[in-house]
Amino acid sequence: MPTSNRQLKLAARPKSLVTPDVLQLVESPLSDLAEGHALARVKYLSIDPTMRVWMADIPQYMPPVQIGEVMRSFGLAEVIESRNPNFKKGDKLVGFTGLQEYVVVTGKEGSPFQKAPAAPFLSDCNFLGTLGINGLTAYFGLLDVGKPKSGETLVVSAAAGATGSIAGQIGRIQGCRVVGIAGSDEKCKWVKDELGFDAAINYKHPDWKAQLAAATPSGVDIDFENVGGDVMHAVLSRMNLNGRVVLCGLISGYTKAGSSEDDPTLASFGQVLMKRLRVQGFIIIDYVSRFMEAGQQLGMWKMMGKIKDNQTIVKGLEKAPEAINMLFRGDNIGKLLVEL
Amino acid sequence: MPTSNRQLKLAARPKSLVTPDVLQLVESPLSDLAEGHALARVKYLSIDPTMRVWMADIPQYMPPVQIGEVMRSFGLAEVIESRNPNFKKGDKLVGFTGLQEYVVVTGKEGSPFQKAPAAPFLSDCNFLGTLGINGLTAYFGLLDVGKPKSGETLVVSAAAGATGSIAGQIGRIQGCRVVGIAGSDEKCKWVKDELGFDAAINYKHPDWKAQLAAATPSGVDIDFENVGGDVMHAVLSRMNLNGRVVLCGLISGYTKAGSSEDDPTLASFGQVLMKRLRVQGFIIIDYVSRFMEAGQQLGMWKMMGKIKDNQTIVKGLEKAPEAINMLFRGDNIGKLLVEL
Repeated sequence: MPTSNRQLKLAARPKSLVTPDVLQLVESPLSDLAEGHALARVKYLSIDPTMRVWMADIPQYMPPVQIGEVMRSFGLAEVIESRNPNFKKGDKLVGFTGLQEYVVVTGKEGSPFQKAPAAPFLSDCNFLGTLGINGLTAYFGLLDVGKPKSGETLVVSAAAGATGSIAGQIGRIQGCRVVGIAGSDEKCKWVKDELGFDAAINYKHPDWKAQLAAATPSGVDIDFENVGGDVMHAVLSRMNLNGRVVLCGLISGYTKAGSSEDDPTLASFGQVLMKRLRVQGFIIIDYVSRFMEAGQQLGMWKMMGKIKDNQTIVKGLEKAPEAINMLFRGDNIGKLLVEL
Repeated sequence: MPTSNRQLKLAARPKSLVTPDVLQLVESPLSDLAEGHALARVKYLSIDPTMRVWMADIPQYMPPVQIGEVMRSFGLAEVIESRNPNFKKGDKLVGFTGLQEYVVVTGKEGSPFQKAPAAPFLSDCNFLGTLGINGLTAYFGLLDVGKPKSGETLVVSAAAGATGSIAGQIGRIQGCRVVGIAGSDEKCKWVKDELGFDAAINYKHPDWKAQLAAATPSGVDIDFENVGGDVMHAVLSRMNLNGRVVLCGLISGYTKAGSSEDDPTLASFGQVLMKRLRVQGFIIIDYVSRFMEAGQQLGMWKMMGKIKDNQTIVKGLEKAPEAINMLFRGDNIGKLLVEL
């Protein structure tokens, strides 16, 4: 049995990419296994964009990793010693192994490990990808949040990534036209020829936005968004009315997370992502058929004194242009009107 | 009967605020009224932020106003002459009057005018504000999109504006804690003392973000957003999990609409607004209870060959830090793993 464990501990918070000072390789002693615990040897570590977010001391969906802690990661580990009847030697466990060679499984409630079922057509790797966190993310993100309908157009960014590649294929299974965006011709070829996407676009080509327009002749109904920034903006520009954006990742901004260069666009969308907010664009002209209902209720509230108002009134048609500017200068209280 | 009509026509597209060259005051002849038409004298013009958007030649929710056309606006007009039995002299009409003294009402289907009902407790002004487009926007935006529940915290930006002031009061009627954000102490006083908001914060005060935090001790459940940019970002930073953002306006960016200075944050959120998109932040950990369901389906698809995957594998724990960077450089195809 091993007596020591190599671990990567968070030693400093990254400013951009992960520089050598960020993760420190240390050798820690492995003490004798306590009753109820099991020891598992890590076979595969899952490397995910969200790890960069966990390294930053910013509000997020889980506590950030603290300085001195083993860096959090998903992984697959095989039990090599056990003092817990629920874990047998040879069992394969998937969960938060952290970046280390061995992990002690405590078996306590809330222990973040699940057994990988024995399945002849699946490799160990699959439990960290297609059937792991990426497949699950693609599955629920697309089906539950995106709600695809057959015949709709789905765009997936980071289409050759672990999550995007599955999301696009699930979109195909649902009968969508699926267009992938990726960062190399090789990736685009894989996505299109191997995975069966209807089209794939390399966003590093100068005319990629024109290619995107050509590949989405009926516009875009669903954006499965993994990237953010310019890529997302280009897709948003192709969206149809009442489209859905599954905000799953914003990788274009993660290396700036927690730094002063933090992009304000990404920071705002980052809040939407981390807090699972629903942002709904809204224009009153969609509600014309229900104006009567609202008008009666508003009139009632106004009559009862439950709603008060104020007018800022400017006189004369020739003052109208300047009145528009007053709005942007904040010169009105309540409704701004021009009286003729 | 009048024989000429003073009109403000769009003469040039604005670059920032509305400069004198943008709207040109012209005098146009009024011809004799055709059969089926009515002539109405405009009493009040509604001045709305969206007018700045209509002036810009950018994709939006209605066609932009074309150069040479009378500038589009809402207004209230009184019928002074009629050759249409549906419109009687003295009738008050609300709709797209445009920035002009007189408007010819054609009475055709789709004619954008509604009669203002006679109501003793309402002034003409109210049909352009509380019972007009602003009240309707506040009503449907808050109730239909925001779905407030009693006891929740609602933040309204541009709280002293025509729409925000009504949205906040409807929030109070629904039993929400309502916090307004406005641009002067005078506006804040009106919003708090007259309209009954629980708190009002002047975003021009240096410590306004701390004031916002203090005024939202339980976080924010609904953001009725009229402003965008820094104001929105500060509110998003206070949002609770699964909060809702009613994206109603982005006034902080409108004076740059269509210019090269167009803020990318606002441009992306502008797409969300104009196209009534739903953007939903999504984190897989919310779906733990349904992992089994998804795992079975994904496994089935994988077995049937409907989902394919690829692994990019790096060997050795010491390579894990660099592997994280590979994600941000786009060096992986499919799932990136470290094999130990």
